[in-house]
Amino acid sequence: MPKSVRATFRVSPELDLSAIDPRSRPVGPKDKSAAAADMNDLAARLEGLQDALYAEATVEGTRSVLLVLQGMDTSGKGGVIRHVAGLVNPQGLHIASFKKPTPEERAHHFLWRIRKETPQPGQIGVFDRSHYEDVLIARVDALVPEEVWRGRYDEINVFEAELAAQDVTVLKVMLHISPQAQQERLLARLDDPLKHWKYNPADLDSRSEWPAYQEAYTDALRFCDTDTAPWYVVPSDRKWYRNWAVAALLAETLGEMEPQFPETDIDVDAERARVLASVVA
Amino acid sequence: MPKSVRATFRVSPELDLSAIDPRSRPVGPKDKSAAAADMNDLAARLEGLQDALYAEATVEGTRSVLLVLQGMDTSGKGGVIRHVAGLVNPQGLHIASFKKPTPEERAHHFLWRIRKETPQPGQIGVFDRSHYEDVLIARVDALVPEEVWRGRYDEINVFEAELAAQDVTVLKVMLHISPQAQQERLLARLDDPLKHWKYNPADLDSRSEWPAYQEAYTDALRFCDTDTAPWYVVPSDRKWYRNWAVAALLAETLGEMEPQFPETDIDVDAERARVLASVVA
Repeated sequence: MPKSVRATFRVSPELDLSAIDPRSRPVGPKDKSAAAADMNDLAARLEGLQDALYAEATVEGTRSVLLVLQGMDTSGKGGVIRHVAGLVNPQGLHIASFKKPTPEERAHHFLWRIRKETPQPGQIGVFDRSHYEDVLIARVDALVPEEVWRGRYDEINVFEAELAAQDVTVLKVMLHISPQAQQERLLARLDDPLKHWKYNPADLDSRSEWPAYQEAYTDALRFCDTDTAPWYVVPSDRKWYRNWAVAALLAETLGEMEPQFPETDIDVDAERARVLASVVA
Repeated sequence: MPKSVRATFRVSPELDLSAIDPRSRPVGPKDKSAAAADMNDLAARLEGLQDALYAEATVEGTRSVLLVLQGMDTSGKGGVIRHVAGLVNPQGLHIASFKKPTPEERAHHFLWRIRKETPQPGQIGVFDRSHYEDVLIARVDALVPEEVWRGRYDEINVFEAELAAQDVTVLKVMLHISPQAQQERLLARLDDPLKHWKYNPADLDSRSEWPAYQEAYTDALRFCDTDTAPWYVVPSDRKWYRNWAVAALLAETLGEMEPQFPETDIDVDAERARVLASVVA
């Protein structure tokens, strides 16, 4: 495990997204084959940590983890779920995708649908998009008045502090891609008939608002980066690097939590005798 | 893919569980290493099929799959989730575990909590225990009067017919173990402090009712085996065989559904031109 993956990717109050090269590799493996080897180690590590987190919650543990994924279209949120979340036991995973709000969702406070999907004790939750859409597309497309979205940064910080109080360890990752990478990926979707279903003509609308989105991301990351719910920016033009970085962030976060297989109060010798005596007819 | 995995494991109206050897291998790989090779093929096949099922639902598809897992304690429901469900993209998975009902759940009809967890279009749902508990433990422990649990077989058949009408393809698997295998697995849990949390002294209560459970399983499987929601019995004393068999059943079921990557009505050339023209400042 490279050290300090979190410190490397953590945003600062002076965050400038344009200064972060989406092809950079500030820490970790230098190429795809090194990353593949690293991923094997990370997979084993993540599986062990998740097992312990899950076990801990079966007795009296209250802790869980929530990985929030945000990024422009084609930045690889789905790829991270497949290749990183796919490394752990699905029994302990809870994945929620937040698409365009339904009429029912719109009729409620913006955090209503989010609260319903927060992870249970022992789980690793993954948000594919999140409440941050309510300060991203809602701001860029002026879906609500400015005073409303401006107020949401504080609401989000209060909500995430509540999560921390409920022993949810939150980590938030922005998958940072270049407009060139997005263009290539959109063209790749058009070139492959099996990927046409992934192509949404409306994606070009948000693409045309690229600078406004970068500004909205910058504010969201600056205003809502806290020690209990930190934001990380992961250079994501290289898919293998993106997957490695998110897996490493998750492993480092879980590692620091030190989840423990629980002690139980069973009398092992007495139970062993009971099991041995329990002959089935 | 061996042919007719489903036909091999499908229960018959004359089901006699005592005549099925939990160590038997009626079809498929002869040993663990052959099973491991087969599992690689099955993993690739399952991933492709699930991708198509998921994609299909993003356009106008309505189909989903529901794998119901039942079995005595230690039969390996959790192992199947880890090793079989873990083969596919977690984005398209929905896993629900049904434990002892909560007071709220008990206050509702027994299918209330079940209906809330049925898979959405495009998903593979997995039930770790299910509504069948309501004709298993509820019957063996006389949690409800006989007329109540006797009526549930029909209620279950009606419910599962509703699922079929909603394009949910249901497959139900009983993981069939011997009492000797259960004894060994309970002792293994006691021998390993990291597994103590999995050991529940109350498991010996159901163990002591083994013949009554086999009888209750037999009725459930006989009465609720239908062509739209078939029951399969998988010999499960060998973990590698159990995992292979469930993966093969799932792959064969999905394969017969022939999920299709959807056609879309996008004008590919026009969209390609739009993407190429969309230069970001």
